[in-house]
Amino acid sequence: MPDYTLIYFNARGTAEPIRWMFSYAEIPFNDDRVEKDDWAERKNSIPGGKLPVLLIDEKPLPQSQAIARYIAKEAGLMPEDNLDAAYCDALVDTVRDVMEKVYAKMMSEDDEDERKRWFQEEFFPSHMAPVLARINARLGDREWFVGEQVSWADFMIAHAFGEIHSHHSEAFEDYPAVVEHIEKVRELPAIKDWIENRPETTH
Amino acid sequence: MPDYTLIYFNARGTAEPIRWMFSYAEIPFNDDRVEKDDWAERKNSIPGGKLPVLLIDEKPLPQSQAIARYIAKEAGLMPEDNLDAAYCDALVDTVRDVMEKVYAKMMSEDDEDERKRWFQEEFFPSHMAPVLARINARLGDREWFVGEQVSWADFMIAHAFGEIHSHHSEAFEDYPAVVEHIEKVRELPAIKDWIENRPETTH
Repeated sequence: MPDYTLIYFNARGTAEPIRWMFSYAEIPFNDDRVEKDDWAERKNSIPGGKLPVLLIDEKPLPQSQAIARYIAKEAGLMPEDNLDAAYCDALVDTVRDVMEKVYAKMMSEDDEDERKRWFQEEFFPSHMAPVLARINARLGDREWFVGEQVSWADFMIAHAFGEIHSHHSEAFEDYPAVVEHIEKVRELPAIKDWIENRPETTH
Repeated sequence: MPDYTLIYFNARGTAEPIRWMFSYAEIPFNDDRVEKDDWAERKNSIPGGKLPVLLIDEKPLPQSQAIARYIAKEAGLMPEDNLDAAYCDALVDTVRDVMEKVYAKMMSEDDEDERKRWFQEEFFPSHMAPVLARINARLGDREWFVGEQVSWADFMIAHAFGEIHSHHSEAFEDYPAVVEHIEKVRELPAIKDWIENRPETTH
């Protein structure tokens, strides 16, 4: 097995579902967390200057989704069938589109009241609710999003929407299948164990 | 072989590299182009309300990158090796990050002078040039971006950056390997044939 080092900030963000996959498959990895004060110095050594980066035997792989998809295959979380893999990709890209709006707002807006207004009046009705309605219906009473087994799409959705749910559970009232699914992923023994024992972060 | 219908606007955009892959592998597909005036009516029948969508035996697959990756596998444009596939993904995501800035500006800004100023003073120096420098060095005197064979990453890069190159060739002066690569993909017999015979579009 190669030597893996996952470099990210001392935060959950886009690295956390990758950490979940490592934990799920019991693949050892170095969880390299860059503190804010050290970033300016380390940035130059990071190809593309963005995190996360995964070092695979010291060779860098950038881009959070590329890393996640690579580790998903190593972790047995990728459907064998091309079309099932494509449905996973489409779900992951849909979640990414939604989350990028959140990240962009958080980066550009410090005012707590304006963030709250934006979430309630713009983000939720226009972007989040239509996606939640669609994936809630898609899930129905199935256990996982694609096929009969848990896949990396389940991890990516449960992590991203789980973060939003933890701050805005009221917004999920009409989407009980999604809420139940988030809980089911977090209750997988390896994930539960990771969440209980992971380093504490403020964001 | 399933029946494929690729639904997109009457434009190149994010559907065009998918059309290239179909053409490259000689996979027949219905090239369903929605005219602007018809979009309001058809939008409701599109899951998620966004294009492109690929109908696979009438079952919809959304998200341009998910479609491209699926067709890449069907077309023999996906490396077998997991790590090589991941390098393709990382390149494709890097190009996507760059192109999303272009799309966002084009959607929000109609003024031609402001678009030109933005391109020269913001987009090119801050976003495009660093990526071009990196991928130009990565390519060096290699023929293709990943491994020894042409892959979907070559198609995605050559299409996206080829569009920018066609309007701003002066910006590519320091990146001759990238320019040569764009030309090499466009000169693949199937792609050359597609480009010569494709429907004319204004954008």
